[in-house]
Amino acid sequence: MEPEELISSETRFAGRLLRLRVDTVRLPGGQVSRREVVEHPGAVAVLPVLPSGELVLVRQYRHAVGRALLEVPAGTRQPAESPEACARRELLEETGFEAGTLRELARFYVSPGWANEELIVYLATGLVARQPQPADDERIAVEHVAPERVPELVLKRDIADAKTLVAVLGYLGLHLV
Amino acid sequence: MEPEELISSETRFAGRLLRLRVDTVRLPGGQVSRREVVEHPGAVAVLPVLPSGELVLVRQYRHAVGRALLEVPAGTRQPAESPEACARRELLEETGFEAGTLRELARFYVSPGWANEELIVYLATGLVARQPQPADDERIAVEHVAPERVPELVLKRDIADAKTLVAVLGYLGLHLV
Repeated sequence: MEPEELISSETRFAGRLLRLRVDTVRLPGGQVSRREVVEHPGAVAVLPVLPSGELVLVRQYRHAVGRALLEVPAGTRQPAESPEACARRELLEETGFEAGTLRELARFYVSPGWANEELIVYLATGLVARQPQPADDERIAVEHVAPERVPELVLKRDIADAKTLVAVLGYLGLHLV
Repeated sequence: MEPEELISSETRFAGRLLRLRVDTVRLPGGQVSRREVVEHPGAVAVLPVLPSGELVLVRQYRHAVGRALLEVPAGTRQPAESPEACARRELLEETGFEAGTLRELARFYVSPGWANEELIVYLATGLVARQPQPADDERIAVEHVAPERVPELVLKRDIADAKTLVAVLGYLGLHLV
């Protein structure tokens, strides 16, 4: 499928986390269109599974959506940090666990119509308990969740974000219907 | 979990699709922090399933991520349009199918750390073939996909966006490991 040809690009916002640009593009048919694009450095998430089979999730208030969610530990990628190093760092900071083994579970764009954020989800096993080290502006409550409770948490919408749904559905092989 | 208290909010971009604001918030501990938030009107997606069991997916070039993806039909919610009406409209426009029955499969935030976009995914059955009516700036190729091909398409990253992963994983009950 032919790409769109970039005619011009204007950065309209450059913040601490996000950049926003408005691109003018020419479609293969010749038509000119306008695309609003949010640039994000990318993120990683980790589904940590204890030897008991329980999942280690984190509950935190999310200002952008105005509520608390139960999520897999996750964070934004730092420049010059490998995704695996980022996953280990976020897991330790948010839950206090060191991962023995990381295995890539999924890699996806969160909303490719308008954002370039790519998110990699790892499965973490061989967990070793250390001390949580939350970032200054994060308030996080760690919860150990038995796999059989997941369908109820999805139904109640305690679990209600893309990365956590992809992680638990893909790991547990759950049916939503 | 206590919410963050909004101290001030500044809109930094207001476009055709997106708005971006920078909020200053006070955390329950008293610390002041800054949150970059993208506002999006919300979206719906539809997983259309034919009587044969085949899934109806659409391939389209995504400028924000610089490549074509194989996705469930989807679109942005219009003001004063119900999610179900939006789902039926997008399904007809992009694939030419009218849905007999829509059933909610999932509802989630695409990236709640910085965006308020909520996406509802419906399962559509009882499909009736009409005429596709693509929007002016959409170029879309419809593909009928047998369920047994989905794992390979995920592995090849033809399927590589959150809504399509949630839809196919949750409908088919697939394991990613």
